[in-house]
Amino acid sequence: MKLKFTKMHGAGNDFVVIDAINQDVRFTPEQWKQLADRRFGVGADQMLVVEKPSTDGVDFRYRIYNADGGEVEQCGNGARAFVRFVTEKGLTGKRAIKVETMSGIIEPRLEADGGITVDMGAPILEPERVPFDASGLQGKAEGTDTLWPLDVNGQTTWISVVSMGNPHAVQVVPDAQSAAVHQDGPAIEHHPRFPKRVNAGFMQVVDRHAVRLRVFERGAGETLACGTGACAAVVAGIRRGLLDSPVRVTTLGGELSIAWAGPGTSVMMTGPAVSVFEGEIEI
Amino acid sequence: MKLKFTKMHGAGNDFVVIDAINQDVRFTPEQWKQLADRRFGVGADQMLVVEKPSTDGVDFRYRIYNADGGEVEQCGNGARAFVRFVTEKGLTGKRAIKVETMSGIIEPRLEADGGITVDMGAPILEPERVPFDASGLQGKAEGTDTLWPLDVNGQTTWISVVSMGNPHAVQVVPDAQSAAVHQDGPAIEHHPRFPKRVNAGFMQVVDRHAVRLRVFERGAGETLACGTGACAAVVAGIRRGLLDSPVRVTTLGGELSIAWAGPGTSVMMTGPAVSVFEGEIEI
Repeated sequence: MKLKFTKMHGAGNDFVVIDAINQDVRFTPEQWKQLADRRFGVGADQMLVVEKPSTDGVDFRYRIYNADGGEVEQCGNGARAFVRFVTEKGLTGKRAIKVETMSGIIEPRLEADGGITVDMGAPILEPERVPFDASGLQGKAEGTDTLWPLDVNGQTTWISVVSMGNPHAVQVVPDAQSAAVHQDGPAIEHHPRFPKRVNAGFMQVVDRHAVRLRVFERGAGETLACGTGACAAVVAGIRRGLLDSPVRVTTLGGELSIAWAGPGTSVMMTGPAVSVFEGEIEI
Repeated sequence: MKLKFTKMHGAGNDFVVIDAINQDVRFTPEQWKQLADRRFGVGADQMLVVEKPSTDGVDFRYRIYNADGGEVEQCGNGARAFVRFVTEKGLTGKRAIKVETMSGIIEPRLEADGGITVDMGAPILEPERVPFDASGLQGKAEGTDTLWPLDVNGQTTWISVVSMGNPHAVQVVPDAQSAAVHQDGPAIEHHPRFPKRVNAGFMQVVDRHAVRLRVFERGAGETLACGTGACAAVVAGIRRGLLDSPVRVTTLGGELSIAWAGPGTSVMMTGPAVSVFEGEIEI
């Protein structure tokens, strides 16, 4: 069959987005893998499929498939691409769009300036729930946060631990560009105190409303823009008393804006999503 | 402007192919770089632009731009994609197509079975012209070839040296899949006896008409299919008395067939080229 698609990206995280309302889309995991292949297919981190909702009062359903062919939970960058897609294709005129995902109903919002805001949920701050094994460690209070000493390549690194559904270890560095992301990232990711491994964030504080951030992602290495990493870094910075909400986060792939009102409330992430090209593939 | 393009690959070497006969195509190096970017553009190893010829008796001209935005000489995989493109788009009905390239006029040919044959030129066999510094080395004659002992990671590796316009060091291995490509490739590439560095080929002889090949490319690491590497490997195998022309070469990206009638004659490479999808981008 001939499949029409739109290639999009949100701060460098890229997607093949497919209208499955006006096209019949039923692919095997092998076909999703082929689509994701950057040489033998279209190429993308993930495929995003827009469907009719199965529930009343909801506008759409979407599914996300990884490059390995498996279906995965929603991600903030994908939700932004979804909003841009249904808006540009005229599939809705709404600005707050209710959509069913594997992880429940979400309601991303198209802002007046073109940015798209996604509710990323409330951060988990208890070390054992991140999970981080703090047993026998002497933490250091800073603001309302606790910094933990981590032995990384023979040096002590002070980190905040935050979960945004996935675990993050955030450290403040004097300069993001020269930070030892590739040397220290793997050592932090695999540090025995993180039983499920961890994403390592390196945050440079520019001012109270702006940071530069690099993230070494668990299982992926350094990525262009990690949405949950930006949320975790800003939460850590606000708790340490270094930042005030909202915070502009400059990543390698683009800019995100993160707002957080404090413990128990959702982190709101606003960022771009861009259509790069339109395509048609025989598959 | 809106630009139509076709995404193609030849044994895994991928191209954005553009009809510049029916579209006005004038891009800056920055725009070529953007097109080649796999997240912010379409993504490809190279861009191939099909133009009207500037000479009588020639069918087309083509230009190739690298992912860094610079214009480069023709390559065998690109010539195959070119033939498939002008045939599928109905820009010619000929099977032998004369085309001007930066490196002169070539005449790739569409075979009855759909494969495309490209004249890759005659191999250069004199070590000093490869270039390889054999001074003080004791070579070992095998067939009409001379094998040279190379110290690689503390072991002696016997190699053939061949240039196909670019230098190659070819060794025979018992099993291509388990060959130490990533360990020994960099050591061969940078061996001081190759003043311009070298592409390292690891060839498993399956029978007298079939090999498996992996190539560690100079400046690029292991690639899916190196056209000149396949030519160099088969030339070395024929000279050593291990192979008879034509030889089927199985690479990570697909199969190539290499024919060679002996010193002073051109190596003929036949292989596939596939259209993956059609696209349109605003640039």
